[in-house]
Amino acid sequence: MVSQQRVLGIDPGLTRCGLGCVDIDPRRRARLVEVGVVRTSPGSSPEQRLLAVAEAIEDWIARLGPSVVSIERVFAQENLRSVIGVAQVIGVAMVAGARSGLDVAQHTPSEAKAAVTGSGRADKVQVQRMVTRILRLDSPPQPADAADALAQAICHGWRGGGSGADDVGEMVSAGGAVRASARTPAQRQWAAAQAAARRTGAVDPRRVRR
Amino acid sequence: MVSQQRVLGIDPGLTRCGLGCVDIDPRRRARLVEVGVVRTSPGSSPEQRLLAVAEAIEDWIARLGPSVVSIERVFAQENLRSVIGVAQVIGVAMVAGARSGLDVAQHTPSEAKAAVTGSGRADKVQVQRMVTRILRLDSPPQPADAADALAQAICHGWRGGGSGADDVGEMVSAGGAVRASARTPAQRQWAAAQAAARRTGAVDPRRVRR
Repeated sequence: MVSQQRVLGIDPGLTRCGLGCVDIDPRRRARLVEVGVVRTSPGSSPEQRLLAVAEAIEDWIARLGPSVVSIERVFAQENLRSVIGVAQVIGVAMVAGARSGLDVAQHTPSEAKAAVTGSGRADKVQVQRMVTRILRLDSPPQPADAADALAQAICHGWRGGGSGADDVGEMVSAGGAVRASARTPAQRQWAAAQAAARRTGAVDPRRVRR
Repeated sequence: MVSQQRVLGIDPGLTRCGLGCVDIDPRRRARLVEVGVVRTSPGSSPEQRLLAVAEAIEDWIARLGPSVVSIERVFAQENLRSVIGVAQVIGVAMVAGARSGLDVAQHTPSEAKAAVTGSGRADKVQVQRMVTRILRLDSPPQPADAADALAQAICHGWRGGGSGADDVGEMVSAGGAVRASARTPAQRQWAAAQAAARRTGAVDPRRVRR
């Protein structure tokens, strides 16, 4: 039996760092806890900007008490200068999580997109739309970084919610209470996304290890 | 008049992170305060390794009270996977410095090498040899990461010690007490290195700004 999990998703960046916190219940329903964006000025020194992001993450952890921090993994293919800046934010976020005794996970942007939309190549509007639907929000989270942070959190919560075979079939056999007909639209989306991902290999849950 | 400056140099890395603390006096004499290497196990999670490095840097700052942290700047040309890991350590080190209210600087490996050896292309043995000579040590600092951290600290201390025109000639006119004949061997090395660097353009002091 899996209990409710509170996940803090982070879309790392220096100019805008998306933070999205969600609860995922044992039936994999996702509920919004808080969402926001930390902004720092390009006119400040990089160390002051990193410190501001670090303090914001620490504040969210202290106030909301997540059990895990899930951070968007930086991409090797992107512009190298921006990769270095994003990697610095990721390092700072990882330490904030580890210092609070939390689990720290990372999923790539395509894993997060595939989790919420069924496609690792979904555009920002699709991600915003699905995050809005999954969390039953009145309006889409703004800006895109906020929606990406929520997608990262939902991605981790759905993956981490199972005990290995992370599809809805596993939930039925484990919990006995959830039948396919009782699935929420989001759960059906998730099952379809997972099936698609298994076919294409787009979803490959793993934590960063070097 | 420039007072003594205590610089904590950092050669960032996850497996080995070099830490080297030096005092630079107004006559640019460098004195070793402490040198060491933080090692973390590749078997640990990246967040635990980053946390261990963060706590070591925080410990050194608290115990030694440097006024500035100088961190080796990551190179864009290197292997990208390792760049991301090093950038994460750099971010963590920058926050450690900023949180303690210290100045944070970065110099490239070639700037540090040029500062202590006169050549931005010096090999590790040359750097170890010159760091040993400049700091009047009985034996070379081991491993290379330790010497690199000290070179980074010396580089920053010597650059930061002046008020713009950072050569020994400027010291003479400003202080009035230091004549060319009173230069230490290290100061003569430095003056020669700076002259060489000015010719080749290898020395270009700057702090990271994005």
